[in-house]
Amino acid sequence: QKPPKRTLSAVAVTSIVDGLKKLYLEKLKPLEVAYRFNDFVSPTLTDSDFDAKPQVMLLGQYSTGKTTFIKHLLRSSYPGAHIGPEPTTDRFVVVMGGPDERNVPGNTIAVQADMPFSGLTRFGQAFLAKFECSQMPHPLLEHITFVDTPGVLSGEKQRTQRSYDFTGVTEWFASKCDLILLLFDPHKLDISDEFKRVITSLRGHDDKIRIVLNKADQVDTQQLMRVYGALMWSLGKVLNTPEVMRVYIGSFNDREIDEAKVGPMGKDLFEREQEDLLADLKDIPRKACDRRINEFVKRARQAKIHAYIIGQLKKEMPAMIGKAKAQQRLIDNLEDEFAKVQREFHLPPGDFPSVEHYRERLAGYNFDKFEKLKPKMLEAVDTMLGYDIPELLKKFRNPYDN
Amino acid sequence: QKPPKRTLSAVAVTSIVDGLKKLYLEKLKPLEVAYRFNDFVSPTLTDSDFDAKPQVMLLGQYSTGKTTFIKHLLRSSYPGAHIGPEPTTDRFVVVMGGPDERNVPGNTIAVQADMPFSGLTRFGQAFLAKFECSQMPHPLLEHITFVDTPGVLSGEKQRTQRSYDFTGVTEWFASKCDLILLLFDPHKLDISDEFKRVITSLRGHDDKIRIVLNKADQVDTQQLMRVYGALMWSLGKVLNTPEVMRVYIGSFNDREIDEAKVGPMGKDLFEREQEDLLADLKDIPRKACDRRINEFVKRARQAKIHAYIIGQLKKEMPAMIGKAKAQQRLIDNLEDEFAKVQREFHLPPGDFPSVEHYRERLAGYNFDKFEKLKPKMLEAVDTMLGYDIPELLKKFRNPYDN
Ligand SMILES: Nc1ncnc2c1ncn2[C@@H]1O[C@H](COP(=O)(O)OP(=O)(O)OP(=O)(O)O)[C@@H](O)[C@H]1O
Ligand SMILES: Nc1ncnc2c1ncn2[C@@H]1O[C@H](COP(=O)(O)OP(=O)(O)OP(=O)(O)O)[C@@H](O)[C@H]1O
Ligand SMILES: [Mg+2]
Ligand SMILES: [Mg+2]
Repeated sequence: QKPPKRTLSAVAVTSIVDGLKKLYLEKLKPLEVAYRFNDFVSPTLTDSDFDAKPQVMLLGQYSTGKTTFIKHLLRSSYPGAHIGPEPTTDRFVVVMGGPDERNVPGNTIAVQADMPFSGLTRFGQAFLAKFECSQMPHPLLEHITFVDTPGVLSGEKQRTQRSYDFTGVTEWFASKCDLILLLFDPHKLDISDEFKRVITSLRGHDDKIRIVLNKADQVDTQQLMRVYGALMWSLGKVLNTPEVMRVYIGSFNDREIDEAKVGPMGKDLFEREQEDLLADLKDIPRKACDRRINEFVKRARQAKIHAYIIGQLKKEMPAMIGKAKAQQRLIDNLEDEFAKVQREFHLPPGDFPSVEHYRERLAGYNFDKFEKLKPKMLEAVDTMLGYDIPELLKKFRNPYDN
Repeated sequence: QKPPKRTLSAVAVTSIVDGLKKLYLEKLKPLEVAYRFNDFVSPTLTDSDFDAKPQVMLLGQYSTGKTTFIKHLLRSSYPGAHIGPEPTTDRFVVVMGGPDERNVPGNTIAVQADMPFSGLTRFGQAFLAKFECSQMPHPLLEHITFVDTPGVLSGEKQRTQRSYDFTGVTEWFASKCDLILLLFDPHKLDISDEFKRVITSLRGHDDKIRIVLNKADQVDTQQLMRVYGALMWSLGKVLNTPEVMRVYIGSFNDREIDEAKVGPMGKDLFEREQEDLLADLKDIPRKACDRRINEFVKRARQAKIHAYIIGQLKKEMPAMIGKAKAQQRLIDNLEDEFAKVQREFHLPPGDFPSVEHYRERLAGYNFDKFEKLKPKMLEAVDTMLGYDIPELLKKFRNPYDN
């Protein structure tokens, strides 16, 4: 094996994210574009996808203290925040850092190229009217973005339907988020049908979920145990994972914990839980950086397999006549083509995409127009995976590692 | 309506149980015998079924403190009790009151007519060798009988199979018991396959189940919350009832609670939980008396419906020829006969037994030999239900009501 050619552009790279961004533009994106990866697997990445801060989403019934929780962490309200015992937050609010305090309406933010929210346009006007970005200068917001949400509805209120696909939106945010906090309070334990659907929409992101039993100082210890037990009892059934979710029990606001009610022991417990949760939050940027590298590598592998598949289909097309028939035969026997690719390039079968999904997508294409396999392009991606990325990690390490 | 004839025997009745026993012998048992109720629904009751004390069964992994729990309540060991960190109790032990301290082997106790354990013979010799009765004079045992059990097995140990039907036995005891305590300790939370089967065998007796998280002072508060949460998480899934089971958190033995570990708050909590559990136990005799009346009434209603069904089948049989054919037709169309009975006697359809079960049982009989419906017998049961039992309750009230 000859040593790989160094091709990382001469432009100085300043961080891991910066390095990934450049590698993407120079090495991965050309492959994706050539074989239309975005049509089959995942939209082309933009700078904003790389620059987005790790996100923490808060979910829970109304009045469980979601907005107060954010206020507590920031030690100040965010622009446009409303707190109150009745349902207050009526929209999805992305709370992020910015040079000055301002609110940007959903419609505006969704079309901004430097913001990672263009995917939300598919939830339509009714949703965008209930979407907002709240910006302010804040040291914490330089590292984390919060997503405040309207209270999940329960009982009667569920019937007056939302005007947009609420669980679709929570699912979208869940896939972008690094942490999802589910808030409960001792008086709002019931998991309504909407809440159940929301929790179901989080499937596949179990590792991001944390439970917060908030306002724990509003009941005495024996009641708290009942409440907590009841919560775990029903959550276990709804989430249905064998691993128990981490629960933080405490009171996450600026008021002193009511020691008269919970005693010194309760106060001590809540304070320790608060510390643990803060540590968990502080850990997000580090984990998010690792997650990003991971997902980038995964994406590159997917893009390679995609290129092999498209190249294979192109190769099997006849030079002159019977093109339409040949294309139909290839679609019909797509499994076989997948298998050929897998054998020829020694790829793990588990890495392959769904045959069905590809069959559906391929129907709209003229295989004759597909690109041939371009070994140079694939080599570039291999170099990136085998050399550039490890170099990048060696050079910078995770900035949040200590 | 003419006033019902008083037929309760002249022999003085001394208590509710005594009254029920007499009513059974005079009014219900004749009906049951005439229509072979015992073959179809439930064995004929004996005196011992009436005299048996309310029972509390303890279940849980080995070393969770079942035997210690009984010792703690009695403030003394029961004859033959073994306590230790390794699996100690190797048999089912019925701990009951008696004139002197002694242990009676399973084989002996199961054949004693004055004991309510003859039903256990069906679990065979292998079980009876692991069954024992421990007797001692004790004020608490005059009101409650305890059933200590061998620890439920987990992990490796499950594979070395039991020599008898363990879950069959727990199911049998569950149906006779008034309270079932499931013991856990912070270091023994896992619900093994055997434990799952045991819990499943308790279905239909959900209202009798209480959970005990024992030895709670062996971990600090934060750990306790984790442990307790994990327990509820998995129990909710295994028990699968929407209602949360009552859990008692504490340390049920004679040692002082380790305040150094759990703090004053924990001590206070455990003491309150202990009080609640004791109150729950004290309430058993009262509840058991109510339950017994309830079940007696239910049984009388079942016996009546059974008599109507048998009488109906007898009525539909031809006087002379074609008996075998007629009987087969009746069995084939049993639903219709049930429906006729239901309409004729205005009975609630929900009270009827399973057609399938009856079809199976009836196959072995000659319908021609069945008794005709005897209105006098049914009248006697009606009088018992409508008059004697209410009178009995008026005269004695529940001896445990205060
Ligand atoms: N830890 C806490 N202890 C006691 N009260 C609290 C706590 N957190 C919030 N509250 C109170 O609960 C009420 C609801 O708080 P908040 O508006 O933050 O809830 P929310 O979850 O954002 O509700 P919504 O879904 O309606 O936006 C407010 O009155 C707030 O002061
Ligand atoms: N509340 C408690 N706190 C601390 N230790 C306890 C407590 N209860 C019991 N133990 C100890 O745990 C061990 C097991 O107790 P015990 O024999 O009563 O359990 P068991 O459930 O009956 O076990 P097995 O199923 O083997 O019969 C003993 O060493 C006992 O002293
Ligand atoms: Mg809010
Ligand atoms: Mg024992």
